[in-house]
Amino acid sequence: MSAPTHPIRIDCLQYCNWSETIFRQMRQGGLDAVHVTIAYHENFRETVHNIEKWNRWFEQFPSLIFQGFSGQDVRRARETGRTAIFFGFQNPSPIEDDIGLVEIVHRLGARFMQLSYNNQSLLATGCYEADDAGITRMGRQVIKEMNRVGLVVDMSHSAERSTLEAMEISERPIAITHANPAFWHSALRNKSDVVLRALAESGGMLGFSAYPHHLKDNSNCTLESYCEMIARTAELMGTDHIGIGTDLCQDQPDHVVEWMRTGRWTREIDYGEGTRDNPGFPTMPAWFNDNRDFGNIESGLKSVGFDASDVAAIMGGNWLDFYDQSFGPQPSNSAHDQRRAAE
Amino acid sequence: MSAPTHPIRIDCLQYCNWSETIFRQMRQGGLDAVHVTIAYHENFRETVHNIEKWNRWFEQFPSLIFQGFSGQDVRRARETGRTAIFFGFQNPSPIEDDIGLVEIVHRLGARFMQLSYNNQSLLATGCYEADDAGITRMGRQVIKEMNRVGLVVDMSHSAERSTLEAMEISERPIAITHANPAFWHSALRNKSDVVLRALAESGGMLGFSAYPHHLKDNSNCTLESYCEMIARTAELMGTDHIGIGTDLCQDQPDHVVEWMRTGRWTREIDYGEGTRDNPGFPTMPAWFNDNRDFGNIESGLKSVGFDASDVAAIMGGNWLDFYDQSFGPQPSNSAHDQRRAAE
Repeated sequence: MSAPTHPIRIDCLQYCNWSETIFRQMRQGGLDAVHVTIAYHENFRETVHNIEKWNRWFEQFPSLIFQGFSGQDVRRARETGRTAIFFGFQNPSPIEDDIGLVEIVHRLGARFMQLSYNNQSLLATGCYEADDAGITRMGRQVIKEMNRVGLVVDMSHSAERSTLEAMEISERPIAITHANPAFWHSALRNKSDVVLRALAESGGMLGFSAYPHHLKDNSNCTLESYCEMIARTAELMGTDHIGIGTDLCQDQPDHVVEWMRTGRWTREIDYGEGTRDNPGFPTMPAWFNDNRDFGNIESGLKSVGFDASDVAAIMGGNWLDFYDQSFGPQPSNSAHDQRRAAE
Repeated sequence: MSAPTHPIRIDCLQYCNWSETIFRQMRQGGLDAVHVTIAYHENFRETVHNIEKWNRWFEQFPSLIFQGFSGQDVRRARETGRTAIFFGFQNPSPIEDDIGLVEIVHRLGARFMQLSYNNQSLLATGCYEADDAGITRMGRQVIKEMNRVGLVVDMSHSAERSTLEAMEISERPIAITHANPAFWHSALRNKSDVVLRALAESGGMLGFSAYPHHLKDNSNCTLESYCEMIARTAELMGTDHIGIGTDLCQDQPDHVVEWMRTGRWTREIDYGEGTRDNPGFPTMPAWFNDNRDFGNIESGLKSVGFDASDVAAIMGGNWLDFYDQSFGPQPSNSAHDQRRAAE
């Protein structure tokens, strides 16, 4: 088996209706690793059930996918022509109210956990709340524990103050796995210049979303516009702190987006990013329908002027560096310990 | 069996280490009803387990206690010489993230639910958080559902903005089952004049706490000072919106107060209202050691000048009116429906 000629490709957020078809498309698209969401509103037991489902897929399709735990697994995926699957949560619901579950879910393979999903959580405020009081008392404790074990803080769906405080409180870089800059397309889910600059300065990572509600002109967004957005963001953040996080929700029926939006928290309809007239999953842009289309993004990045090494960094190299640094236990010579030693 | 000569006595908050001794003391103290906490941090299943324990006590001591569901059960308790036990939660943890559980816990007998306990919850902010962004998106939905089924919003451990917003949002009067005025003893758990005035104006109820951390001079607080505090509060709130909610935690070992304070949300010690030097349950004031001492409070109220009808209202009459109005389904001619009909 010869290694592919394209650079490492990592998609740092997908939530598809998983199937053999999609796993084969990951291989056709040359994906070395995908961070998959395994919990939106699921509690601990329900999340374990979702891991059980993944265990069956790993068992059924060992030539296509396997579970990733470390950056090294991305290299192993590339060497063996497979895609490493990393687990993540879009809500802290899997740890319920129990800080001891942080270590448990990390052991089970969770590598990213959002501190909130649109609404207020026990840890932080979501981007759809009217007001944001920042990271809570429990949130401060949980971030410390996530730092310790190597579970990455993801603030993709969190509100601004909570996001900035998470960067301050976390002793390890955080991620915004799937969002775009608000300067390009204004949306509650997209991020301000202040957040993006602070993210880069703190060593964090942004994954660019291809979900139509996060795109200028939504489903009609052009590849050129998308790649120009990446180029403008690189001017703000540099080229070391950006990557891809498509938010691909392939083959999902519309009742799934309703679950994502309303979970069990309301008896009323909440359209989230959608509207009464357009409540379902939006149509993907023509240049990104499924995992086979990563080559389009790579070409688009070249077309807007990125050189080969920047393209490689954005398509996966930066995420790989981040995975290498983030998924293991906190080094004992952390900044925190150094500060304490100096006191 | 002849009815007691003293007025109806209701204690709207206790969390004891329950035993036959305590149930017999309730009878000796002439208690017609007690609102007992059955959840601090328990999730739904753990709360059901606590109800199972109560079912065994109801089975073992049918001549002393039975489960109360309505104000009518308080009268039945008095007529049959027993104490009606009403369930409540000091945290919304029993409904987890599931609004559908509101109706379920009400059916099981829950009649009060705090929207938060010291910390941020999914619904509201607790009084120990640095900042308070008010009632959350889920909180607004849950209050509406609590109103519908007859589960009372209790804001005893919540922060000020959340408390004021809860009164505004709730279409039925709310309660602060156990707290004192901050003008008498400044503490994070005690309430401002603004809150107390708004509570009375919205038809809500305050239960005066006898827990030493909420008392002026703590364990050394005198009965006279306590009853003077009630008299001053009556000047602020009137005599129709106040009652007793002692927060009696009799016979509890100190590891229980640690559980109340730290639950599962932190790996560090949190002393809450206590301190490193005084981490356990405080000593109760001399005039209120257990359920046999309600006569002391009644005498004290007379001594500071309340007339017989006010004493009767404060000792239980006001809570009974509130129970009558609050524990059933929302009347169809509610203010909300009238407003909607007028539109």
